[in-house]
Amino acid sequence: MEPIHNIVICGGTHGNELTGVYLAKKHGWLLANPAAAALCRRYLNRDLNRCFALSELKSRKNSSGELARAREINTLLGKKGTKTAPDLILDIHNTTANMGITLILSSKEDPALLAISKVIAKEFKDVHIYLQPESREESPYLGTIAKRDICIEAGPQPHGTLDAELFFKVERVVFRLLELVEALNDGVLPKAGDKIETFTETRSIDYPRDAKGNITAMVHPALQGRDFCELKAGMPVFMGFDGKEILWQGETCYPAFINEAAYYEKGVAMLLTLSGQGCLG
Amino acid sequence: MEPIHNIVICGGTHGNELTGVYLAKKHGWLLANPAAAALCRRYLNRDLNRCFALSELKSRKNSSGELARAREINTLLGKKGTKTAPDLILDIHNTTANMGITLILSSKEDPALLAISKVIAKEFKDVHIYLQPESREESPYLGTIAKRDICIEAGPQPHGTLDAELFFKVERVVFRLLELVEALNDGVLPKAGDKIETFTETRSIDYPRDAKGNITAMVHPALQGRDFCELKAGMPVFMGFDGKEILWQGETCYPAFINEAAYYEKGVAMLLTLSGQGCLG
Repeated sequence: MEPIHNIVICGGTHGNELTGVYLAKKHGWLLANPAAAALCRRYLNRDLNRCFALSELKSRKNSSGELARAREINTLLGKKGTKTAPDLILDIHNTTANMGITLILSSKEDPALLAISKVIAKEFKDVHIYLQPESREESPYLGTIAKRDICIEAGPQPHGTLDAELFFKVERVVFRLLELVEALNDGVLPKAGDKIETFTETRSIDYPRDAKGNITAMVHPALQGRDFCELKAGMPVFMGFDGKEILWQGETCYPAFINEAAYYEKGVAMLLTLSGQGCLG
Repeated sequence: MEPIHNIVICGGTHGNELTGVYLAKKHGWLLANPAAAALCRRYLNRDLNRCFALSELKSRKNSSGELARAREINTLLGKKGTKTAPDLILDIHNTTANMGITLILSSKEDPALLAISKVIAKEFKDVHIYLQPESREESPYLGTIAKRDICIEAGPQPHGTLDAELFFKVERVVFRLLELVEALNDGVLPKAGDKIETFTETRSIDYPRDAKGNITAMVHPALQGRDFCELKAGMPVFMGFDGKEILWQGETCYPAFINEAAYYEKGVAMLLTLSGQGCLG
């Protein structure tokens, strides 16, 4: 494996996710969307973290707002898909879901980052490893500029607020990640063992909606806050505004991003994952 | 006391406080800021719930955005300060602070609403009575259009999300309030006893900030979520981004709205209250 030297840490890709905004300001890391951060909004015109597909970065169309900023960041960091791209990006996010610290690995097969993430999961409480199988080239996420990346999700935290405990925990995780990358480069990465669980994203499900697209139900109280717990057929998943329970009829899964504020507009009530014992390890 | 007949219930005064938005839609109550609700933002141009001072409602200046909507609502409901104003407004809000259901009475002396609120506090768990001494005429809150009002704050809930348990609890509280108003009119209001605590707002305090106005500290983990608990000199109140603890040096008080997302931009880290055993009762 090629060593990982050129590392970029960023926060504020979403301007109202304040852990990353204030960690970036504290340490001089990249504040990805300063215009949105100044107004404490997720984005102004378009979700910046959906602007990094290679085809959009290369196109010359519509270069204003977040898309212009995406192209600027791409140029600044060394360009996606080229040799000068960073070796690694760590991008810090918050979620309103009860996901603790979730390390999202966006590349399909990356045993090195998986090994590092497992050490973090072993050393810190309430850490989850989340695998997002996808093609990096057309993936829209900021981290995919780099050859490999970890998206760090921290929650639950209402957007537009700071939780001091979470702030310092994320900071410790980032600095430990940097130490572990160095250990990896030196061939002395500690072993975490094979028993660290991973969760592989399969699909999203939306809220029940009426013909006009308005939601007609909420996450069921019995599921609220139960990210990464088993959901089986027959268990309650939504509750209508009329109080009616809606039971899960799908596959056994482990939902995450349950009731994430930013996903209401994206048609996502939660993301489903399958649990595997380090299936890529 | 004149009977209370003309009652207005509203939600969505802040468009991202979804309990009120969806209760208003469910029951056909007044959706106060539909433009902000459509975009799931607190407000578009200006905080609607700071537009209802009588002098602003009467002025003909700058009538666009939220101020125009405030004047429209005022006309619709019967005009603040006149005989045709509603007898009572119930305005439903959410907070990211751990305030349970907090009934805010904005009028300086209103034994009738206080008696009703005490019955609610006795019947429901985690209900707090919050007194906001102020002149109704120049108060900027929507509820002050009416002769009397209760602002219902429900939390903790991240803005832009729904919590099913909180949704149904607020709904039950509203319907119980209506029953109790009827009982009051009929002279058969149940007595709650004298031991229900009330909290009277005294002042706000801001986050520590640098010369440029940027916050330099967060709510201390030991205070986070401890709304309506006693804060005494020497107890931790903030924690700097560098980890330094800042201890409280002020008066003994009972903070509320601790770490409310919408108040970062208002220069408010929390509001201080004094506890009294129904001092207006």
